[in-house]
Amino acid sequence: MQNQLIECVPNYSEGRRPEVIEAIVEPFRRRPGCILLDHRADQDHNRLVISLVGQPEPIQAALLESARVAVERIDLEQHRGGHPRIGAVDVIPFIPIQNIDMEACVKIAREFGKRFHKETGVPVYFYEEAALRPERRNLEVIRKGQFEALKTEISRPERHPDVGEPEVHPKAGATVIGARKFLIAFNVNLGTSDLKVAREIAKAVRSSSGGLCHVKGIGLALEERGLTQVSMNIVDYEKNALYRVVEMIRMEAKRWGVALVETEVYGMIPAAALLDSVAYYMQLAGFERKQVIELALLEMMGKDEEK
Amino acid sequence: MQNQLIECVPNYSEGRRPEVIEAIVEPFRRRPGCILLDHRADQDHNRLVISLVGQPEPIQAALLESARVAVERIDLEQHRGGHPRIGAVDVIPFIPIQNIDMEACVKIAREFGKRFHKETGVPVYFYEEAALRPERRNLEVIRKGQFEALKTEISRPERHPDVGEPEVHPKAGATVIGARKFLIAFNVNLGTSDLKVAREIAKAVRSSSGGLCHVKGIGLALEERGLTQVSMNIVDYEKNALYRVVEMIRMEAKRWGVALVETEVYGMIPAAALLDSVAYYMQLAGFERKQVIELALLEMMGKDEEK
Repeated sequence: MQNQLIECVPNYSEGRRPEVIEAIVEPFRRRPGCILLDHRADQDHNRLVISLVGQPEPIQAALLESARVAVERIDLEQHRGGHPRIGAVDVIPFIPIQNIDMEACVKIAREFGKRFHKETGVPVYFYEEAALRPERRNLEVIRKGQFEALKTEISRPERHPDVGEPEVHPKAGATVIGARKFLIAFNVNLGTSDLKVAREIAKAVRSSSGGLCHVKGIGLALEERGLTQVSMNIVDYEKNALYRVVEMIRMEAKRWGVALVETEVYGMIPAAALLDSVAYYMQLAGFERKQVIELALLEMMGKDEEK
Repeated sequence: MQNQLIECVPNYSEGRRPEVIEAIVEPFRRRPGCILLDHRADQDHNRLVISLVGQPEPIQAALLESARVAVERIDLEQHRGGHPRIGAVDVIPFIPIQNIDMEACVKIAREFGKRFHKETGVPVYFYEEAALRPERRNLEVIRKGQFEALKTEISRPERHPDVGEPEVHPKAGATVIGARKFLIAFNVNLGTSDLKVAREIAKAVRSSSGGLCHVKGIGLALEERGLTQVSMNIVDYEKNALYRVVEMIRMEAKRWGVALVETEVYGMIPAAALLDSVAYYMQLAGFERKQVIELALLEMMGKDEEK
């Protein structure tokens, strides 16, 4: 079997107590096959976001260990913060990266949801691609009113959890687990200080106003630089390739005689998203990702472990 | 220390006897830290080319093991083939890939040359970046007249080896060891069947006729497709980025009203060469390779092993 890689970005409702944060992060540090890419605690949000990449099984094992710590040490009755949440372990998305497809990640999410409930007693909702009810694809529908509202509303059939009895865990609430595509945060900076231009371009390119189906975006001012920005999330980079977004913005910007100054990838990006765009611009024919030395190596390293 | 990766492409004078080929390849198959990417035996050339990637020390240990087999089982007095050679182990280049620079690869080549001679008794010449005499940067200067001529000419001071006494190993000849940049085989296909156009463009872009300093190239006909091709080796992709080569060819092709149909990367390419070109075309600002999930992971996996 080939080396399967997923990303996982669990969110915890704890951004203030360093010793609790460290206890939650610790299970991810040393488990072989699970790589801790990053963790960021936000005091205002009172929230911890952890970025993991690795093989599905070790990631799930470490998630359970970490969840036991979070369920024991976080009390949502005491928790205040700027970010909406319903659980001590609030959201766990599984994201396909290499040699694994969305269907397999949905399966992982649903099976993990059962294990998670069994080990922690916390009820589970499935979201995005793993949703069992169409309206639950949307995380905000599940989190409506947050922990405080869910405590009573969970008994109503339309808010029953997908796994577990219809009552929240008294301290740890409920957890949302699912599978989704990799999100790319992508910005295009424009050579104009006219915010109207950035806003019009954002409107033309984003799905909510009829643009590309998997792009969210707003226009912002970059005041210190005298520029404006189309700030975007690319929700499905396979269907809305980065080069298409860039060239569409370039086309729209022409209408105002505005040039693209630069673009930015904020945070991580999968190699496939860049290869796709380089193949477009360079007109690369028949190019395969295993021709990239580093990607071939990563693939082989996985095989080695199985010997 | 960060995870250092090199490529190594040893060439052996054996392309016909499967059991000898396998005995030469075997040491690279199972040594942790040394990944066998590919091996190709050519019967006409009577030559074996092995592609390795991994950490410097395990690669060197496996090279010595493999060299002992080649020196024992190949006899250049009996060897005939279409490719020039002076040794049973003919050429070993070390190529920087990740977290290692050319200077460090030169050091590896020179130290390895001494170990290699000590363990096999085969005299060693250093070439390309590891050359100790300027004319020996060029492999063909070292290999002039092949094994047959070198047997007597090695006693002349200008052909003395860099390591070892001035006499060839009776069966295994001499070995050329060095450090060089990664070579990218890159082709651009043109929408014309007029070979003259491809040849003129090759002349404009290659160093030998005044073009880009690190590009070699020729014009070829792709008769079945009714196209022509500029077939190139990019000898230094850091100094002559792929996008610059593509756009220069596009510019030259305009003169004849010819379009670029497609481009091809033949064989392997380092991620850096593609990232460089995608950053150009997408105007990516402040992009770092560790933002690519797979490259961050590869880096972390190296660190893990050191714990």
